[in-house]
Parts: sequence; structure tokens; C-alpha cells
Amino acid sequence: MTVSECAAFLRGRDCFLILTHQRPDGDTVGSAGALCHCLRRLGKTAWLYPNPEITETYAEFAAPYLAPADYVPETVLAVDVAAENMFPRGFSGKAELSVDHHPSNSGFAGENTLCLPEKASCGEIVLQLIAELAGAPCREEADLLYVAVSTDTGCFLYGNTEADTHLAAAELIDAGADVKRLNKLLFRTVSMARLKLEGMIYTGLTQYREGQINVAKITLDMMARAGATEDDCDDLANLAGKVRGNRVAITVREQENGTCRASVRTDGSVDASAVCARFGGGGHKMAAGCTVETDVETLARALVEAVSAAWPT
Amino acid sequence: MTVSECAAFLRGRDCFLILTHQRPDGDTVGSAGALCHCLRRLGKTAWLYPNPEITETYAEFAAPYLAPADYVPETVLAVDVAAENMFPRGFSGKAELSVDHHPSNSGFAGENTLCLPEKASCGEIVLQLIAELAGAPCREEADLLYVAVSTDTGCFLYGNTEADTHLAAAELIDAGADVKRLNKLLFRTVSMARLKLEGMIYTGLTQYREGQINVAKITLDMMARAGATEDDCDDLANLAGKVRGNRVAITVREQENGTCRASVRTDGSVDASAVCARFGGGGHKMAAGCTVETDVETLARALVEAVSAAWPT
Repeated sequence: MTVSECAAFLRGRDCFLILTHQRPDGDTVGSAGALCHCLRRLGKTAWLYPNPEITETYAEFAAPYLAPADYVPETVLAVDVAAENMFPRGFSGKAELSVDHHPSNSGFAGENTLCLPEKASCGEIVLQLIAELAGAPCREEADLLYVAVSTDTGCFLYGNTEADTHLAAAELIDAGADVKRLNKLLFRTVSMARLKLEGMIYTGLTQYREGQINVAKITLDMMARAGATEDDCDDLANLAGKVRGNRVAITVREQENGTCRASVRTDGSVDASAVCARFGGGGHKMAAGCTVETDVETLARALVEAVSAAWPT
Repeated sequence: MTVSECAAFLRGRDCFLILTHQRPDGDTVGSAGALCHCLRRLGKTAWLYPNPEITETYAEFAAPYLAPADYVPETVLAVDVAAENMFPRGFSGKAELSVDHHPSNSGFAGENTLCLPEKASCGEIVLQLIAELAGAPCREEADLLYVAVSTDTGCFLYGNTEADTHLAAAELIDAGADVKRLNKLLFRTVSMARLKLEGMIYTGLTQYREGQINVAKITLDMMARAGATEDDCDDLANLAGKVRGNRVAITVREQENGTCRASVRTDGSVDASAVCARFGGGGHKMAAGCTVETDVETLARALVEAVSAAWPT
């Protein structure tokens, strides 16, 4: 489906319910919210499905659009949702339309699928859709789409950032997006629990092979001392890899059920997938994982040995 | 001076020596390097003054352009340098031309000053200058200018980021800037010493007034245990302010000479300048500092008391 065809589909329908994905991020919430606002500008009735997993950070962006309990939609569409098993918890039913950027989109909406996998964020697709439906985004939509674009690229830092991503950002700023406030909220604000937990992880980092292997350990005791919950644990597997000179980052985290979960990320010199396979796990060459019934120290030591054994000569 | 006039000036001269500023950052090194490369493309002789303070992060970008010891220039120009007292250490002499974006530019180059203070980075001005001199930047220049633009905006995060900044980034990516490599190097890589120091700062953060005041303390002992040098200490005064709910961030750092240096940053609710004035310091309403002969704990406690006394009712 092209952007124009998708816009025509939306013009011909009314009473929309928009789905976001499970464990919603800024892209699904921002993209869905902006599309909802634009449909309302066109005189349509539109609401978001009240995804129960929306976190504190994104709650304010979803709030004006959450459907009342007695809302009866005519048209259900999904935004930034790759497959039906990612439909939000509590929702049962089908979606007639899918607006997405995941290469893995399952095609659950059949021919009514607008999927542009070359886009870093779904927000860039919704920006095009709004241009087709209503011209320039209004200020509210610009804010919501900036949330989408910026969070899915780590504020233009991740490898998915393209020239088009920056052009979209420029367009949103011109349309009135309050980037000062949004950047501070999204990228310069963290919970005290997260900072304390990061602090403990950093002070406990251990290095092997002259700093080419870096190991981060996270125990339940550290979580408790930091007052951290699952909300504070995004991207912990990224931390050890930040050390200058790192080639293989190992992160081992103690779980409630007596197991430890490990993540191995490499620059490709060592096959992370092969290392994790020795512990019953798997993944890709540069990022893999495993879960083992043991303690953090034991698993960390075993993984360092396995990585060392696989070290290129 | 307009961009065209500056380009005409450069076309009429040869044998350039380009100055970067003291404590050089990515903007001065990247902008100067890109301009140097472009002048060479035009058949000119051009070198950078070998600024002795260039750090490890930026050394690779400056390396191809550092003037040999016996170089005798005809035309000296300064890039991203606000005043003569910011000329690089070891350089004595005048500069005939200034390309800059600091609102405080002292006018040291007289009428040969191209200063656009509305630009977030000097790199955006050099990009315009290269367009005038040679059309699109080549790949090397695109890399150098991306270093300039991205570092001066904290990767498009700081409040100085405008739509134009994103347009410049899009142009540089189209011109071949290797943003994947550069973003990893500039924003996702830190020294082990810096991580250890940040870890100790985070675990030692203290809060007052239900988390509205956050205090970070840095002692010489922490620096020694982390193995940290001055190179690892950029922007330490930003860390305490990241905590959710923060309104006043206080950072106190022990100095080698028996004094402590403090930074106070506020959301405007408390006048940081007035607080620091009580300790012989000063600054602006939202960011001020002071240096006091005492220990870290004593100064931190005194500043918390002073901030509390000035708390809005």
C-alpha cells in the first residue's frame, strides 16, 4: 500500500481505534498519537487503545487519546506493530490496517499494509501520511512525531539514523515541536534508581584481555539497594560495551527464579551466537544470549573463558 | 563579512595557518580540519596550528593537517575562536580572519570577521563556506564537519539544536559522512576511568527536599581510585541534574590546592548566582559557581543550606 492509498483508506472510514505494540516505546505511542490527532482534525472520531503497559515517560503523550471503556470502534488499525502477537495486552480482535516500519511485519493486515522498512522510525511514515491527509503537522502532532523519531534513533545516535531522519526532524522543528522540553524529558532525565544501579554496574565492571573483554554484573541485591524495578533496566546490556577498546561485552543478570540471564555483544571478532550456544542459548554473531541455572560470578567466569577460547589468533 | 566575502578573501590568499581554540573541542578541530582540506582541494597550501591540547578523541581528525615545525604561513585565520586570549597555547601573533559562531566574538579580526551567532556550531558556517568555495563537501570534509556539528549539540540533544542543524546533518550524511563510526566513537565510547568515576558519583548522589536538590561530590580520592585525569572530567556538573524531579543540582569537586570548586545549576526557581555570591563566586541565574577553601562535605552542606534558605515559598 502506498502512502496515498493509505490516506485514501483513512479518508473513507471513521470511528478509529488505534493499536500500539506491547511494551510500548516512544515510536508507537508518538506515531499513534499523532495519527489520532490528525484524524480528529479531519472531523473523524479516533482513539488509542488504552495499552496497559504505557510507562510513566510516555503517559502524558497518550493521555489525551485513550479510548473510554464504552467506545465501539468501526475501524481498527495498528501503528508500529510488527505482528498480531505484539497487539497490546487485553485487546482481542483483528486490525484492518497496518502502518509500520519493521522488516519483519507479518502481513496481518493483508493488502492494507503500509510498511516502509527503510525508515528508522514509524514516525517518519506517519509524517508522510499526515502530509497527504492534512498538509503540515500541527504543533501537537509535531511534538508527538518528534517523540517517535528521536526515541527510535536514540536521539539521532543509533546506526539506523539516515539523512531522511534528520530531514524529518528539521520539518518537525519548523512545525513547532518543542525539542528543548522533549529532549530534556526523553534523554536527559533518569530515575534515581537507574542512576544508582548504573553507578554500581560501572564501579563493578571487570576487564580481561587488556580491556578488550568487559563484564557487567547485575545481582538482585544491587537491584534492591538501588530501589530499581524492571522500568529502570532498559538497555543494561549496552553499558559494558561503552568502554574504550571494548570488543566483547558480557552482561550477566541474576533473575528472581534462581537463574542468570547473560548477553554477549561483540564486534564480530568472536561469534557471540556460538559462545552462547555452549550454554544452551543463541542469537546472532554480534549479539546473543543465554539463561543458565547458576550464580552471576560463575556464569560470568564461564563466559569469559568461552570467549577467550574462541578469541581470534 | 558575508559568507561570499569570506570565500573571496580565501580565494585571494595562500599559505594558510588555521588556529583552533584552547582546550579544543570537536567543533573547532572539525571545522578547522574541513576548511583546511577544502583549501588544499583548491590548490592552496594550508595547515592547522599544532594545538598542544588536542585530546585523544580528536587527535585522528587533526593529524593529517598539523603544520610542520618549519612552516612559514602567509595568512593566519582562526576558526571557532571567540577572542585572542583563546588562541592556542604556544602561538603568538595575530589572525587576519575569524570564522566563528560565538555571540561574544571580540572582533579581533576587525572587518574580516564572519560570525553567525545564530548557528549551533561553527561547522554549519564552514559548510556554507565550502559550498561557496567548492560546492558539496567531499567525504573527508563531511566527516570532519559532522564531528563539529554533532559534538557542539551533544548529538542534536542540547538546547542550541535548530532545524538548520538537522538540515546540515542531512547534507553531511548525503555527502558521505560515516555517522555510524563517528557516533560510536564520539558518543558511545568512554574511558574506563570515566565510567568508574561516574559510577562513584552516582552511587554517592544525595538528595534533599524530596529529590528536588541533588548533590554530587567528587574527591581527589575518587579520582585516584578511578584512575581519572582531567581528560575524564568533561561536564561532570551535568550529572546530578539528570535525576528525575531535580530542580537544583549542586556539584562539589575537591581541587589539588586544598580548595573545593562548586557548580550550582537550577531551573530558575532559585538564583544560582545569588547563592554562589554568598561564597565569593558568581555566574548566571541558572548556572553559577564558587571556589572555597574547605572540604567537600562542608561546602556541599553549606550550599544545600543556602539553596534551602533561598527556596521559593
